[in-house]
Amino acid sequence: MPRIIKKGSKSRGLPPGEMVHIGEKKTEKVKISILDYSIGKYTDKEVKNVEECFSLKRSPSVSWINVDGLHETDIIERLGNCFSIHPLVLEDIVNTDQRPKIEDYEKYFFIVLKMLLVDDKEQEIHSEQVSIIFGERFVISFQETIGDVFDQIRERIRKGKGRIRKMGADYLAYSLIDAIVDNYYAILEKIGEKVESLEEDLVSNPSPETLQKIYNLKREMVYLRKSVWPLRDVISNMLRDESKLIKKETHIYLRDLYDHTIQVIDTIETFRDMISGMLDIYMSSISNKMNEVMKVLTIFAAIFIPLTFIVGVYGMNFDRTFPFNMPELNWQFGYIFVWGIMISLVIVMLGYFKHKKWL
Amino acid sequence: MPRIIKKGSKSRGLPPGEMVHIGEKKTEKVKISILDYSIGKYTDKEVKNVEECFSLKRSPSVSWINVDGLHETDIIERLGNCFSIHPLVLEDIVNTDQRPKIEDYEKYFFIVLKMLLVDDKEQEIHSEQVSIIFGERFVISFQETIGDVFDQIRERIRKGKGRIRKMGADYLAYSLIDAIVDNYYAILEKIGEKVESLEEDLVSNPSPETLQKIYNLKREMVYLRKSVWPLRDVISNMLRDESKLIKKETHIYLRDLYDHTIQVIDTIETFRDMISGMLDIYMSSISNKMNEVMKVLTIFAAIFIPLTFIVGVYGMNFDRTFPFNMPELNWQFGYIFVWGIMISLVIVMLGYFKHKKWL
Amino acid sequence: MPRIIKKGSKSRGLPPGEMVHIGEKKTEKVKISILDYSIGKYTDKEVKNVEECFSLKRSPSVSWINVDGLHETDIIERLGNCFSIHPLVLEDIVNTDQRPKIEDYEKYFFIVLKMLLVDDKEQEIHSEQVSIIFGERFVISFQETIGDVFDQIRERIRKGKGRIRKMGADYLAYSLIDAIVDNYYAILEKIGEKVESLEEDLVSNPSPETLQKIYNLKREMVYLRKSVWPLRDVISNMLRDESKLIKKETHIYLRDLYDHTIQVIDTIETFRDMISGMLDIYMSSISNKMNEVMKVLTIFAAIFIPLTFIVGVYGMNFDRTFPFNMPELNWQFGYIFVWGIMISLVIVMLGYFKHKKWL
Amino acid sequence: MPRIIKKGSKSRGLPPGEMVHIGEKKTEKVKISILDYSIGKYTDKEVKNVEECFSLKRSPSVSWINVDGLHETDIIERLGNCFSIHPLVLEDIVNTDQRPKIEDYEKYFFIVLKMLLVDDKEQEIHSEQVSIIFGERFVISFQETIGDVFDQIRERIRKGKGRIRKMGADYLAYSLIDAIVDNYYAILEKIGEKVESLEEDLVSNPSPETLQKIYNLKREMVYLRKSVWPLRDVISNMLRDESKLIKKETHIYLRDLYDHTIQVIDTIETFRDMISGMLDIYMSSISNKMNEVMKVLTIFAAIFIPLTFIVGVYGMNFDRTFPFNMPELNWQFGYIFVWGIMISLVIVMLGYFKHKKWL
Amino acid sequence: MPRIIKKGSKSRGLPPGEMVHIGEKKTEKVKISILDYSIGKYTDKEVKNVEECFSLKRSPSVSWINVDGLHETDIIERLGNCFSIHPLVLEDIVNTDQRPKIEDYEKYFFIVLKMLLVDDKEQEIHSEQVSIIFGERFVISFQETIGDVFDQIRERIRKGKGRIRKMGADYLAYSLIDAIVDNYYAILEKIGEKVESLEEDLVSNPSPETLQKIYNLKREMVYLRKSVWPLRDVISNMLRDESKLIKKETHIYLRDLYDHTIQVIDTIETFRDMISGMLDIYMSSISNKMNEVMKVLTIFAAIFIPLTFIVGVYGMNFDRTFPFNMPELNWQFGYIFVWGIMISLVIVMLGYFKHKKWL
Repeated sequence: MPRIIKKGSKSRGLPPGEMVHIGEKKTEKVKISILDYSIGKYTDKEVKNVEECFSLKRSPSVSWINVDGLHETDIIERLGNCFSIHPLVLEDIVNTDQRPKIEDYEKYFFIVLKMLLVDDKEQEIHSEQVSIIFGERFVISFQETIGDVFDQIRERIRKGKGRIRKMGADYLAYSLIDAIVDNYYAILEKIGEKVESLEEDLVSNPSPETLQKIYNLKREMVYLRKSVWPLRDVISNMLRDESKLIKKETHIYLRDLYDHTIQVIDTIETFRDMISGMLDIYMSSISNKMNEVMKVLTIFAAIFIPLTFIVGVYGMNFDRTFPFNMPELNWQFGYIFVWGIMISLVIVMLGYFKHKKWL
Repeated sequence: MPRIIKKGSKSRGLPPGEMVHIGEKKTEKVKISILDYSIGKYTDKEVKNVEECFSLKRSPSVSWINVDGLHETDIIERLGNCFSIHPLVLEDIVNTDQRPKIEDYEKYFFIVLKMLLVDDKEQEIHSEQVSIIFGERFVISFQETIGDVFDQIRERIRKGKGRIRKMGADYLAYSLIDAIVDNYYAILEKIGEKVESLEEDLVSNPSPETLQKIYNLKREMVYLRKSVWPLRDVISNMLRDESKLIKKETHIYLRDLYDHTIQVIDTIETFRDMISGMLDIYMSSISNKMNEVMKVLTIFAAIFIPLTFIVGVYGMNFDRTFPFNMPELNWQFGYIFVWGIMISLVIVMLGYFKHKKWL
Repeated sequence: MPRIIKKGSKSRGLPPGEMVHIGEKKTEKVKISILDYSIGKYTDKEVKNVEECFSLKRSPSVSWINVDGLHETDIIERLGNCFSIHPLVLEDIVNTDQRPKIEDYEKYFFIVLKMLLVDDKEQEIHSEQVSIIFGERFVISFQETIGDVFDQIRERIRKGKGRIRKMGADYLAYSLIDAIVDNYYAILEKIGEKVESLEEDLVSNPSPETLQKIYNLKREMVYLRKSVWPLRDVISNMLRDESKLIKKETHIYLRDLYDHTIQVIDTIETFRDMISGMLDIYMSSISNKMNEVMKVLTIFAAIFIPLTFIVGVYGMNFDRTFPFNMPELNWQFGYIFVWGIMISLVIVMLGYFKHKKWL
Repeated sequence: MPRIIKKGSKSRGLPPGEMVHIGEKKTEKVKISILDYSIGKYTDKEVKNVEECFSLKRSPSVSWINVDGLHETDIIERLGNCFSIHPLVLEDIVNTDQRPKIEDYEKYFFIVLKMLLVDDKEQEIHSEQVSIIFGERFVISFQETIGDVFDQIRERIRKGKGRIRKMGADYLAYSLIDAIVDNYYAILEKIGEKVESLEEDLVSNPSPETLQKIYNLKREMVYLRKSVWPLRDVISNMLRDESKLIKKETHIYLRDLYDHTIQVIDTIETFRDMISGMLDIYMSSISNKMNEVMKVLTIFAAIFIPLTFIVGVYGMNFDRTFPFNMPELNWQFGYIFVWGIMISLVIVMLGYFKHKKWL
Repeated sequence: MPRIIKKGSKSRGLPPGEMVHIGEKKTEKVKISILDYSIGKYTDKEVKNVEECFSLKRSPSVSWINVDGLHETDIIERLGNCFSIHPLVLEDIVNTDQRPKIEDYEKYFFIVLKMLLVDDKEQEIHSEQVSIIFGERFVISFQETIGDVFDQIRERIRKGKGRIRKMGADYLAYSLIDAIVDNYYAILEKIGEKVESLEEDLVSNPSPETLQKIYNLKREMVYLRKSVWPLRDVISNMLRDESKLIKKETHIYLRDLYDHTIQVIDTIETFRDMISGMLDIYMSSISNKMNEVMKVLTIFAAIFIPLTFIVGVYGMNFDRTFPFNMPELNWQFGYIFVWGIMISLVIVMLGYFKHKKWL
């Protein structure tokens, strides 16, 4: 479970624009890879030196520069300077505690997103900040660590599948966001499975672990919501923006993407509703169980305590030479008489509990 | 109960516009039926081959093409290509996990709705996605399975009842949506009955099954809400749209439809309110019952435990030859004296519980 | 308590505009009464035949036609045709499951309202749909049953009291709505009394009946809210409307009416707040009472169970010829010694409970 | 505590504009006082006859007419007629169940406010309706009873302190509203003290009285909110209004007043939040206490019930002449042996409860 | 924990603009320090006499006058008069119970903020009101006490680090607000730690102290929210304002600041969500624990009470000379037989509890 707020989450006291990497250092080496393509051809390489990217700035084809690893801030700074990125943008890229947002810097757009990944082992959701800068003919993406959800986009570019090679940088940026949103569906599916298994637990066997699971799920939804809600504004801003960087033909895809985002948000809200309902149900079934326990106790106590009293009476040692002192003990069928009383009492009690619907 | 999110609910990683059928395959064969009508005449036939529909594109009469079954994506693709439908629309038609929405493609409107059906056997609500495309003189509807709520519309077309034969494709589209919304009323009526029977249960005999029913109802409302809420925007968008595809004379019917939708939503919210109130009442009555149980236990314990102590006292075996050791045992009326004490005690206790209003 | 949704609440499957009476048939005969007035004179009669109203259409005075009873749809249809009322309006009039609304048909306004009546015997709120159509010089009102809240308006017209005879049909329509809203105050007063008596119950003697009453009140508020909330939009639409049917001088009265509606809504929300607070208080006081019961039980058990153990010890039958077997039984003051121990124990226990503030 | 809705709270059935005094008659005699001032001079007198005010209508100085007591409606009517006040306004003045509001009648503004007063004896909040009418050069205020929060304004006028003598009637109206809002702070301070004392109670000693206090506080907040919320709209309407009655230089004071109102509302919402949190805490601590009680009971029962069983065993009267019948009773150290067993058992049980953290 | 509302929190009854210091007097002496800078040079001094600041009014460089201590109102008044500050502003500066706000007085802006400080010893959040006035070339800040979060800004000015010396007074004002917002992150981090430690407590060992901590946290969030929420409007007002006092190049920084504020608010809402979830979890685990306790009690009672009854039976003193009176006592293996019965009973009971999953 990611922390709600990271330690040292803002470069406190530093002048704005100062780059300080915030967050765990998740990868050893910074890896820079380039995908440069036009309708006819494409280049795909990994570069050692950030300076190798600089020539792409003026290339007429669409260039996608992907940077994995944010801790070497000077690499990002040099790249940023080459593409004339504003220092505040660079500060936000390395500070991985940003809220999803979009900013229009005329020459380029700056987008911050949260990529969610499920750790298969621990079944926990991890979050990684992805920053996307896209301009006329370039897209630069920054990730905290190697490994992402973009492999199928790379494949499509390489194979010239779909319309990606025919469209511009804005379509590539759209595709990246789309891949991230698509991945939210996978996360929601996993959560949906957890919700369903919890629902069964609630009915068949509520236990403190159920409670713990409900709380964890609730926390996950809080986190998910925080990542996804602002995305709606990001995409609706892209749709409303009249910048010439986002072409007319991309709009229809953005509208589609917007629908998907709304659906993700809808589903999150639905899950939240259901989870909060679950807690109520849990509370009610705990009360129900306690009621059951109490009934068992009461039935036992109410039947046996009077009987114990009766047998106690005949265990008293009054002087039986006086005729009024416990004459029953001297009756011939006293013992049977007492059993008779006791059995009648039990029958009456059971009838009473039957009447009360406790049995 | 339908799942909140379907498995593989988005064609993940595929380029946008790629058609992949999402959802259960609910019917074996794809069934295509055509209803072509104008004021004077109508044709009603089922076609084997999707190409038979192509001629309708240019027919001056209103044509309604209904497709049952979405798994043969190439049929839908060919139909779509003939009517120049955008690939993203076709993708949305076969992906049955859409949110109700309307999209204006200038030459046609694309509407996605959720048709709700109650399975009479299991008393569960099932949902089916209905996609409606309507243009100048055609309406194409897509359903997941055979069987729908449109039979009375077909009847009205065939018999020329009402004004349907006199109006255009927009009125037909309105009629389809109206039939779906009308059906929501039937669903709400069934839920209303469940709510009322639950209310009686709550009062007369709350049990864990009541709780389960409340939860199921709550879940159904979550689902219903998710299907109906977006519909309001769909219809208000149709009302606001200035496209010439929706004629002036249809507006008054759409306004009527809008009212119905608001009323459905109102009723859903009212049910939600009542159901959440029920849970509180349930919790309170469980607490009340526990209180009852506790009182019975306490009364029994508080009366008999002291009595048992008293009779225990006189069961002790102190050496009675010493005058101070349990002289009561040697009294002539000791036994009666002890009973007197015990009966007084019981009377005092009963008075106390009476005073506490536990009896 | 009225049902949230009526059976067959929409004329399902019928073409729009088809008139089907929905709801209980509350009166045997349809009663049509006419009040036709101008500054100088007035006519007041009950007509047998709907056709008698037709001449009023062209009368220069203001005509108020009131129809009690909705089950004879052809009467309403003939009346509607005479005054050129749209079929959808007629359908809404006989379908008594409408949401309060206003519709502007240029030549006339169509208003649906809910009149609330308290059944004095059962102390339940009943609701009756009132439809008002008003045009240039006529007002037609439709009610489900005979008996309404308009008597004082009739009186004012007859006696020429106030300004009603000097104003037009719009003022009459305003007066009808005003009378209905005034009546909501009476309903709220009754509910206010119930709330106050419940508050006293909560404090002095919470019981399962209190719970039932809270739930009933909550349900009533849900119903009331559903009837009154949409009214705000109705009146604010009248205020904003620039139709010449609503004259300038009536606006000030509508604004006053709007204030009253807001106040009714405010009061409803306040009651809802208080009722939901009551449920929390109820739950808390049930918990409090259970705590009380538990304390009594615990005090009894904790005092007498140890004592019973002690007297049990001295009821054992060990062979007292061995010196180590229960020598206390052979002490001269053994009995008194044991009582001493037991009394000390009771004092210690009572001190402990005192310290715990259970006594 | 004031009632949420007053009896006969609207002049039901009467034609609009009919004056009927609603609410308790709080004062015997109607008292009319006049403060007429300009920069240089001021007149301050109490008048017997309402006609004495009429000359003020045309006076070039600012005139403040204050009326205490609303039950003599004809006085108010005559005053209203003189200043050409609309009958609906007069009706609202005497009906003391209004919602705070502002109405612009071109020649004058009509403002309704709620003045809150704390009864020092009963520590309850009382509410009094204050109606303010202000025009070009006059302010008329109506109060239900003698005694208000305006004394310091009178003082400032008399002494010519501050800028009040230099400004117009709008500034005087502002000052009156400001005095009422200032008084809300005093109320909130008192409530703040109650909240803090309740918080301490919650921690140290929650009891049913605490619950009652929480409920009363909640009710007070409901009432307060109802009085203050609409005030925000009143003042923002004054700010937005472009009437020449409100001068430019008064705007800055109104903005300040608006800030104060927002702050009052903010504080009310904060208190509501805290009070609703308190109820949860209360419920939790009651549960905690019950848990404590249950633990004590369980510890006593679990320790002594088995012991009582053991001593019961050796109180049985089996024929000890048979060697297998209770041979322990004939052992030399049987008694000590049994005590050994019992003490071990107690130690084991205590260890168990220690392990469970119940001790 | 700061009080929600300060005593005497508004200068009640005084004419508006009257300066009265509200709040604790937190510092002995008023300290005035001046930082006057332009690109090339800077002056940094502490002045004894407020008149020393007056020359700065006309200085071409940017002047930052910082005043610590608000109780000597005449100093603030003289300073205000020199810079032509409106009396209402001065009143708000010394009244430390303001809501964060911004006011545009054309020649200058007036901003009120809440600076939050964590007292390291008591781990409590303290709040201090900071008022900022900035005009063309000056910034005046007022604080309640010595010590603030601006040291790094002073450092940057002195060392000419970043762009602060190149920018105007608006950038300095921005920097001050930014420093305060940055500090909110530190507060949120501390709260985040508390939340996480509470989460662990909830799972491992819920206790009444946990409850107290949850409540305190909740209260802190209420307070924090009250301080931070209005800030969003403050900054968005600065962004929208078209005053020439806020230069174009500062806008990008304000936008960044706006993002940070949104993120702070987001995090506060997330915490609130989590804390309210915690309370539910706490309640549930208390119920769970009570259930545990009840089960232990019930198991003990249900096993030993019947056994005690059985041994009680054989402690009765019926006259065994009659053959039907307790013949078991005379059996050779009676004792063993009774033990057999009792052990079987225990086994049956344990099986029953196993079946009920209580063991």
